[in-house]
Amino acid sequence: MDIEKVNSMDLGEFVDVFGNVTERCPLIAAAVWSQRPLSDLEDLEKHFFAFIDALPQSGQEGILRCHPYLAGSELQRGTLTAESQREQSGAGLWSLGADERLRLAELNAQYRARFGFPFVLAARFSNRTAARRLLCPSAQELRTALGEVKKIGSLRLADLLRADPAKL
Amino acid sequence: MDIEKVNSMDLGEFVDVFGNVTERCPLIAAAVWSQRPLSDLEDLEKHFFAFIDALPQSGQEGILRCHPYLAGSELQRGTLTAESQREQSGAGLWSLGADERLRLAELNAQYRARFGFPFVLAARFSNRTAARRLLCPSAQELRTALGEVKKIGSLRLADLLRADPAKL
Repeated sequence: MDIEKVNSMDLGEFVDVFGNVTERCPLIAAAVWSQRPLSDLEDLEKHFFAFIDALPQSGQEGILRCHPYLAGSELQRGTLTAESQREQSGAGLWSLGADERLRLAELNAQYRARFGFPFVLAARFSNRTAARRLLCPSAQELRTALGEVKKIGSLRLADLLRADPAKL
Repeated sequence: MDIEKVNSMDLGEFVDVFGNVTERCPLIAAAVWSQRPLSDLEDLEKHFFAFIDALPQSGQEGILRCHPYLAGSELQRGTLTAESQREQSGAGLWSLGADERLRLAELNAQYRARFGFPFVLAARFSNRTAARRLLCPSAQELRTALGEVKKIGSLRLADLLRADPAKL
């Protein structure tokens, strides 16, 4: 897909294609649509990230809270978004042993109790660093977690833009 | 449901219950969750509205763009959210004659072309004023449309809070 194709999309098409670049927050894609015409694909990504950065802290936490648990019950039940399902499965989280799944569930619960949002990780980079991140100060961890949201968004955008537009 | 019940909800429960107070924007409920403990039910509503008001204009337009067309193809196909389905059906939009549906589709299209977001109306108050609102200046119409988002949110909150929590 090239930038002319992206710039030519009407609102419905744009949100259908880019609505889950930020997990379960189509509001962000719907806001970015205002910024067309975009100069290039980096410009597209830049507008997603600028929107996230401009939100008040409660909104940034809201974004994080729209993310699912890693290796959580939604993965087991198959109710994740298609993107999360692919990412978590691809990172091997589908095939964890029972012990490892239990350990990750405990870390997830501790993390959320401490920070008030779920542990977010660009699972395709997959080093499971919940234990280390649990020790960070809250303000630093909010920045780290939003950085992961952006990595996830970059990878999802790259997938979408590589895709054959005829198949979208 | 009383405010103690609301304040006792964990994040998942809160977003399950209040996630669609603003149509297809669970990010907002997830952000409001940070504000607990809430002093009363008006305080809950106030935080939804304050979040909307604090967004940059692109984000406010993003909220509007997450709303479906009135009497549009999603109503026909049954793919609206449960809340929108109830509201649009209750306002008689399900049983429009073909002429009236066509006229409304034309107004919807003109409106979206002019303002860049769909025509949003608290359908339960149901006076179909698309034609009049088409004539407004853009800045005024953005305020009017966000006012409708808030009316919709108020009615949805009232429904939720009246509901028996055991049935939620």
